[in-house]
Amino acid sequence: MSENLEKTTSNGAGDAMLQNVGVKKEPDPAVQPHRILVLGSGFGGLYTAVYLDRYLKGLPDVRITVIDKHNFFLFTPMLHAAATGGLEPRYIAHSIRKIFRKTRIHAHIGEVLSIDLEKKTVSTQHRTMAYDDLVISLGSRTNFMNLEDRLEGVFTLKSLKDAAVINNHVIRMFEKAYWEDDPEIRKSYLTFVVVGGGPTGVELAGELHEYATRELLRDFGRRIDKSEIRVILVEATSRILPMLPPNLSLEALERLRSIGIDVLLETRLEGYQNQKVQLVGGDEIPSTTLVWAAGVKTNPLVAALDLEKDGIGRIKVNGTLESTKKPHVWVVGDNAHSMNPHSGMPYPPTAQTAVRQAKVCAHNIVARLRKRPEKLFSHEHVGGFVSIGDNYALLSAKQLTLTGMVGWFLWNLVYIHKLPIIRYRLLSTFSLFLKVFFERATTEIDLTPDPVENPSPEYQRALQEDY
Amino acid sequence: MSENLEKTTSNGAGDAMLQNVGVKKEPDPAVQPHRILVLGSGFGGLYTAVYLDRYLKGLPDVRITVIDKHNFFLFTPMLHAAATGGLEPRYIAHSIRKIFRKTRIHAHIGEVLSIDLEKKTVSTQHRTMAYDDLVISLGSRTNFMNLEDRLEGVFTLKSLKDAAVINNHVIRMFEKAYWEDDPEIRKSYLTFVVVGGGPTGVELAGELHEYATRELLRDFGRRIDKSEIRVILVEATSRILPMLPPNLSLEALERLRSIGIDVLLETRLEGYQNQKVQLVGGDEIPSTTLVWAAGVKTNPLVAALDLEKDGIGRIKVNGTLESTKKPHVWVVGDNAHSMNPHSGMPYPPTAQTAVRQAKVCAHNIVARLRKRPEKLFSHEHVGGFVSIGDNYALLSAKQLTLTGMVGWFLWNLVYIHKLPIIRYRLLSTFSLFLKVFFERATTEIDLTPDPVENPSPEYQRALQEDY
Repeated sequence: MSENLEKTTSNGAGDAMLQNVGVKKEPDPAVQPHRILVLGSGFGGLYTAVYLDRYLKGLPDVRITVIDKHNFFLFTPMLHAAATGGLEPRYIAHSIRKIFRKTRIHAHIGEVLSIDLEKKTVSTQHRTMAYDDLVISLGSRTNFMNLEDRLEGVFTLKSLKDAAVINNHVIRMFEKAYWEDDPEIRKSYLTFVVVGGGPTGVELAGELHEYATRELLRDFGRRIDKSEIRVILVEATSRILPMLPPNLSLEALERLRSIGIDVLLETRLEGYQNQKVQLVGGDEIPSTTLVWAAGVKTNPLVAALDLEKDGIGRIKVNGTLESTKKPHVWVVGDNAHSMNPHSGMPYPPTAQTAVRQAKVCAHNIVARLRKRPEKLFSHEHVGGFVSIGDNYALLSAKQLTLTGMVGWFLWNLVYIHKLPIIRYRLLSTFSLFLKVFFERATTEIDLTPDPVENPSPEYQRALQEDY
Repeated sequence: MSENLEKTTSNGAGDAMLQNVGVKKEPDPAVQPHRILVLGSGFGGLYTAVYLDRYLKGLPDVRITVIDKHNFFLFTPMLHAAATGGLEPRYIAHSIRKIFRKTRIHAHIGEVLSIDLEKKTVSTQHRTMAYDDLVISLGSRTNFMNLEDRLEGVFTLKSLKDAAVINNHVIRMFEKAYWEDDPEIRKSYLTFVVVGGGPTGVELAGELHEYATRELLRDFGRRIDKSEIRVILVEATSRILPMLPPNLSLEALERLRSIGIDVLLETRLEGYQNQKVQLVGGDEIPSTTLVWAAGVKTNPLVAALDLEKDGIGRIKVNGTLESTKKPHVWVVGDNAHSMNPHSGMPYPPTAQTAVRQAKVCAHNIVARLRKRPEKLFSHEHVGGFVSIGDNYALLSAKQLTLTGMVGWFLWNLVYIHKLPIIRYRLLSTFSLFLKVFFERATTEIDLTPDPVENPSPEYQRALQEDY
């Protein structure tokens, strides 16, 4: 049991709920810790908490609490590998209680339901907590560009569950195609459409293509031919991977096309209905799989806060990452509209931005506590890493450009090295090593409630000739 | 595409559905393969199919099809490790399409809905299939000993989903206890009851105890003390592990008690209501976790067949493993009432029995096709393997008895060696090796629809003193 269970009081606001403290543990009235609440345990929140803990050595009376609805930090840059059988889900989802164990950071597993900036409290379904400093890093939602109502049964790739659902779905489409006789319906089962030419879309398209045409084809090759499988990447603008230099964008495009992926540039969607991807202009692509990876918008809870915000709901912050309107409210990651002083544009919503902001945010919170100078956030994008299919990645750092197998190994090393738990670094390394020589998983991660889908009418026209 | 898609016809019964064959692929009327349908891809079904394929070399005109609702073979003896963070779910769930790839065996992923022994057909939700030989190995269900209606929210450990659900539940109970102040409620969250002193119950209790008092305690140790955690094993008879010699049963009992598990022998349940385990005699154990591992009964689909059966619905078979009533209907594994000629008792429903029956059943089906003599099934139980907590196992073979760490290593080697896919053997070995030096996973496998449970009233009495 913690020896240091102090009384939490709201900041003078007399909140009745907050006064209702446990009776057994008498707090030491002389100790009133400074309370820092971090909302979200993604790249922004997790790293802010970890840096805070590090910078706060020697300041004992500060309490850091991270709130997240999941008990894990999700390593999102590797989600596409979990969606296509390359990595086990838990390799990229690490318990935050484990990560925080040797720190002063507390984990509160619960969903943030409301934020009261006046009373300085945050409520989850379990309790209401007061704060002195608040760090908002609740992450983003998928931006469907106002097409929500016209997208039936679209997949996204933002959570561990999303990855498992995509993995199962792809396998099931192969199962359906395996027995299907109608060539049009077969084609629709074996056409996989990904929308969005950013890193998520490009990496997923690459992995999906490899998974379908190599791993799954081995399992289903008795009745499915490689020529029937199609992976299509749809991008609205004229280039993919806008964060890379133009020559590397072009190289990535060539790589995608050379392994057999159809890349449709300057192509927009109008909707996805009756298992047909409807393109602006009238063309349709029959497909039972559409993954939307085309952009983000801020969390609705954040968008609703009475703070200064930009057009897509992000909170405007000063150079120190504090809200322009409310002191002691800090914002990092996808929730922040943080202006790049060099480019005059807000920083992009990437993991790289979030981790670097986390460091500056933690520094500034501690600096204010210690009455020392604060820092302004400024960073030059050091480059991009994109893996495209197996054994190939594009790496672009300041002076360095790498492609191919060497890039792929480095991509893996860099990312695996960033996994917070050593055991998973080793397992992931071993697993990726095995992937070169062996096959990846084609087992459904069958934890969802309904493993066997309702048979479609065409599926019921039971094919008799080859059971 | 398969080059050999022949027409399936029912055996003279003129079933309209079966005549509705695909039009594009003309079957060769001279080739009418012998059709063997295997129901279930557990130890009985999978091994029967694999042995059939091996024994049928040189007999091209035989088609083997395995039907299962899952696309994987589940290595059930290691389920308890998946339920307690020791192994990733997919390490013990291997795609049957992958296993069958280099064989003549077809996989049909679908649920067996009906078996027509007169027309010699089996229907899934996708189609109806005719057979010449039928192998029934659909496995067993949990036998609640007629207490179903008095067991609220009980867990079982028979499927991959069961393992994931138990894993998540245990973590969530720690999360609840972490914030709970009422000592009685805390105790109930931290008390884990397992019913059944067979291998499943003993191994699960051992792993659960270790998981709770070592791994989870590390994560939650700030507010949870080891003395609050209790694992209880309830067994109705006077000894655990009845398949072991009595001295080893006793040694296992001592091991369980020495690591701190409460073993209640000669204790029966009356029910589980309002999160209280009710024992016959009136005692109650408050606990939010009850896992029922106390016995099996046959599959209801099998129990309904018009064949000669025993009291718990298993099909009576001859020494050759063919139904006593219906030729060409073979039964292996938990569905078979197969008499041990030495003991005069039916063989126990174990993986060991199922695999050995599979071999004899496959031999006999092929022997009849080849018009050679059939074999009688007879086997002496070669011993038992039970792991109890970490780094300890009991091994009992004919002349050999091993306990402790050496037994545990051998236990792992033997089981891992039986995993059908080499990549998973390597990964599991590496993972178990790491487990000795590192920690296991305490991340929720958060793939179920509702990760955050409804907060209970006591949980909502938000504890204020230590967020």
